Order: sequence, then C-alpha cells, then structure tokens
Amino acid sequence: MNILILSAGTRDKVVEFFKKEFAGVGNVIATDCSPVAPAIYEADKAYIVPMISAPDYIDKVLDICKKEHIDACFSLIDPELSLLAKERKRFEEIGVKTIVSSYDLCETSLDKYRMYQLFNEMGIKTAKCYTSREEFALAREKGEVDYPVFVKPQCGSASININKISTDEELNTLFDIYDGLLIQQYMSGQEYGADVYIDMISGKCTNIFLKKKIKMRAGETDKAVSVKDEEVFEKIISFVEKAGFRGMIDIDLFKNDAGWYFSEVNPRFGGGYPHAYSCGVNMPKYILNNLNGIENPVNIGNYEEGVYMMKYNEIMIRKEDELIE
Amino acid sequence: MNILILSAGTRDKVVEFFKKEFAGVGNVIATDCSPVAPAIYEADKAYIVPMISAPDYIDKVLDICKKEHIDACFSLIDPELSLLAKERKRFEEIGVKTIVSSYDLCETSLDKYRMYQLFNEMGIKTAKCYTSREEFALAREKGEVDYPVFVKPQCGSASININKISTDEELNTLFDIYDGLLIQQYMSGQEYGADVYIDMISGKCTNIFLKKKIKMRAGETDKAVSVKDEEVFEKIISFVEKAGFRGMIDIDLFKNDAGWYFSEVNPRFGGGYPHAYSCGVNMPKYILNNLNGIENPVNIGNYEEGVYMMKYNEIMIRKEDELIE
Repeated sequence: MNILILSAGTRDKVVEFFKKEFAGVGNVIATDCSPVAPAIYEADKAYIVPMISAPDYIDKVLDICKKEHIDACFSLIDPELSLLAKERKRFEEIGVKTIVSSYDLCETSLDKYRMYQLFNEMGIKTAKCYTSREEFALAREKGEVDYPVFVKPQCGSASININKISTDEELNTLFDIYDGLLIQQYMSGQEYGADVYIDMISGKCTNIFLKKKIKMRAGETDKAVSVKDEEVFEKIISFVEKAGFRGMIDIDLFKNDAGWYFSEVNPRFGGGYPHAYSCGVNMPKYILNNLNGIENPVNIGNYEEGVYMMKYNEIMIRKEDELIE
Repeated sequence: MNILILSAGTRDKVVEFFKKEFAGVGNVIATDCSPVAPAIYEADKAYIVPMISAPDYIDKVLDICKKEHIDACFSLIDPELSLLAKERKRFEEIGVKTIVSSYDLCETSLDKYRMYQLFNEMGIKTAKCYTSREEFALAREKGEVDYPVFVKPQCGSASININKISTDEELNTLFDIYDGLLIQQYMSGQEYGADVYIDMISGKCTNIFLKKKIKMRAGETDKAVSVKDEEVFEKIISFVEKAGFRGMIDIDLFKNDAGWYFSEVNPRFGGGYPHAYSCGVNMPKYILNNLNGIENPVNIGNYEEGVYMMKYNEIMIRKEDELIE
C-alpha cells in the first residue's frame, strides 16, 4: 500500500506520521513544485512537479502514481483540493483513491459566502456575511449588524488582507480599491479548532480532536490546549455527516456567551494536526484502515484534555547537489 | 560556566545549540514570561518571569542569576536588549556578563531613522528615509526620491504595518491616522542576511555567515542558501567594528545593480541563525571562549557555499501538570 502526498511544502510532520504508519506496509511518496520544500525530504521518495496550474500537472501526477504503484493520494494545499476532486475519475481509472471531499464541498470551503450559506442551511451559527455595501447598509438599518466588521476577500486563503473596519469611509475605501470583497460581522469569542475524520467507507464522523487556541501576550506563535465539549462534538458530527465531507478535515470555531459558532472548514489536514496526532488521533491509521477496506469505529473525544502544543521552527538542511530536481 | 537565556520564546534551536556547547561545562537556564514558550523546555532549568516591562523584572532576573550561579546572560527579543545594556552594571556587580551591544547601539537598532543616520555616517548605502511628509515632498521636488515608498513605524519591529504607497492620497491617509511614521525609499533587490560575531574581548569581527534569502512562488516560508561575497564581508567588518557592536548580531541587506545596501541591524541572534550554526558558525562556542577569557581568531567566510536551509514547524507537547509555573 503506497501513498502519495501532493504539495507537501513545509508539512514535514504529516509526512513523518505517514512514514511511521506505512512502515512495513508501503512507501510514502511526496511531491512539490519547489526543490526547497522541506517536507519532500522526509518521504521515502520525492518528485518535483509543475505548479498545480500547469496544463500538464495532472498528467505528471498520474505518471508518478503509475511508476510508484500508488494506491491513494491527497493534497496539503487548498487550491489543489477541488482539482483532485474534479479529476477523481482519472485517478480511479488507474486504481488510485483520491482522499478528498466532493468537488462541490471543496469549492464551497474556498468561498466564504458559500460556506456561510451552507452553515445557515445546516442550522449552524456563524458570523453574518454580506457581499455588497448595499446589502450591508440595509442589514445595518434593520439592526441586524453594525460596525465593526471584517472586510476580507470572499475567496481568500489564510488571513491575508483582512481588515477590521469601523466606518463607512474605510469600507468605501476598500471597496473602491478591491473587487470580490466580503463584509463579515465582527464577533468576539474564544477561538477553537477541530481536527475531524469522516470515515471514507461508512461516511460517519469517527474522530474529533478539539483544541482551544491560546492567544499569546506577544501575539505571533501558535499554541493550543486539548479540550472536550459534548455540545460542539454533536454539532460537528451532525454538520460534517449531513454536508457529506470525507476523510480528514479541519474546522475553525469560536465560542462566546451566545454559544458555538463555526467560521471555516478546510477539507484537508489542518496546520495544527500534529497536536491531535500527539494525543493519539492517528489519521494516517484511519486512512490506512479505509484503504484496506476496514471501517473505523466511531471514537469521538477519546484523548487526554489539558495537553498543550507549542510550535517552533525546525530546519532542514540540504547541499546544492542533494536537492531533488 | 552557566548561561542564562532570557525571553527564550520559540527559539528552541538556540537553547539546544547552547546545551550542546555547555555540556560538561555548565548549565543553560532559560526564562520567559509565558509557560507556553516551548524553548524554555529545552533548557536544563527554566523560570517563568514577569514581563520585561514589569517594575520588578530585573530584580527577578538578578535573583535567578544568583540562585543559579549564572556567569553570563543574553536576550532573544529586541525590546529587552536596551534594558540589559542599561542595567549592565547591576549584572556585573554580581559577576554576570551581559552579552549585548552598548545601550546606544541597541536603541539605534530599534529606531529606523537613527539607524539610517548611522549607516550614512559610516558611508554605508541604505534606502533614503524621511520622518515627515514635508521633508519627503521637498526631496521629491529635488528628484532625490519618488513613489513608490514604504511607510512604516519608525520604531516598529518586524514587518508589522508596513505599507507600500504610491500616491500622496494614500500617504496622507496613513499620516492622518498614525503617529511616528517613517517614509522609506522603495528599492528592489535580492535580499540577504548576515549572522555576524564581534569578539567581546578584541572587538574584532571574527565571523560572518552570509545567506541569500529565497523568495518562494507561494510566498510564506523562510528558505535561504549560504553564499560568500568578499565585497560585502569588507563592508560588514568595517561597519560593525567602527560602530562598536559586540557579540552576535544579525544584519539584513540587499543587493541590486547599484551594489550592496544595508537595511537593518538586530543586535541579537537572528531568526535564521540555525542555518549559520548548521554550516559550522558556532556562536555558542565563540561566546564560551570569550567568557573563558579567550579571544576568538578572525575566521571570516569559513563555511560551505550552496547549503540550503528550509524552515518547518516542529511542536513541543506538555501536559498541564508539566508546565513550568
């Protein structure tokens, strides 16, 4: 059983976890478009591929799948998720399972307004969103929402270009300069993250790891502590099963006096997944089970609370002639 | 010989390098104001201290120095450098050497305009700076400078709030909102970094590690490759010796068709120091030599070129009851 990790980038830990799980079982192969992506050097074998936007990208990946007898593949970056879902058939034709949610869900996850609509349909609380100044002004008149608001790209990744806005003047300035903006209700609350696994055979949510994000005095670095909450476990299970996600996903949430709010879904390994893994939530194992035709048992919240995770920088060193070409 | 690393934060690698060098020689003690600072868990012993702005901060640090028989200390964060330099005498009174440049140089390094003036005095090329709109407008009239420019806080750290500005309107908006801004000539060029050691006994620049920063297609992560350049080595040696820096410092530079430009000096271990260390530029050893009264030999550029460094995230895990209080 060989697995291919696409766009491995700097996700060294994910590659490492798969290598541990696949030891004696098969190979872990990794790709990236850059030879200075440290994670590819953790794999059993690595390939440099074109950028995902290149016309021959999927062909090159399929070639690697054939050559390395790959059984399943997944990607670690957002823009590639829809692509894999869309090309799922071409992978299936050569016996490769694509570990990714449906094309529609991948696209929805990239679009903050579509995700807002999905949350609403599912009865999940989330911050209110508006795609135009007019719509927002109307909602303000009705008393539905007020400044401050976040203004962000509707389809942006990460927190790039997010602005907290308090006046019409600032709002107009941003809308005059940029297209494709979204106005989002500003809500305070404690931030949480959830690493979730949805069994690829049964479609059931089998594992959830919930962590409270720790805001540092100096800002900057990622720290979190494992927690449990039955109420949000129920909400997550219901949401991901009804929506139909598959495999590993990452959900951003927050909680305030009014309860739990969902803010974002990333249908891939989240950046904080090593925390879940270190607490025993072993997704490479669940994936391997699924690939072997074994359903994973539902095992929600079976981890220790009060485990702190603190990120820091490690480095990978390679001489020029050791770089993969 | 025991050493104290203040505000260790997420600089796990630096603590690790000192532990390697001080093995069999003495202890490495670390502090931070937060119990979720991963680097403190790498040390032989760690203490949680007040924030550096607290009135009793230095007293608490001096207490630790006495209790742990500390011989020397240094800090890993910018705002603490001036503080250590200012309080140097109180440390010396209890036999503790503070590894830091002079108070004046630490303050200059925090202030982009003062550093600009220092570079000018030393005959070092750097981007032009203006502290007012009027001064900038005058220089524009004279044809000295033109848009685009960077507008940034005169005393800000890192790249927080840096804006690339192309019109008077944008410039005025920023100046109307914020105080203490600096207008800096926008210059393109290849970015470099230098890890530099200035012997604390001889005052000579003994080691320089030069690395070219690699811009990634996807942006985001830190990658660099070791390089050598005799011309910039000479410039760095002359600058740091004339200015009078001491110990480990980090210099940001760039190069374009007009030659080498200096942009910033951080009189502490730079974030990319592990790259230099992995190429044999062993500053913990040079520090230990100095503490033992041994001058380090001048040894500029004695490392391999073409060594690539790629950062990625590692995690430190601690249970609640294992956190240092």
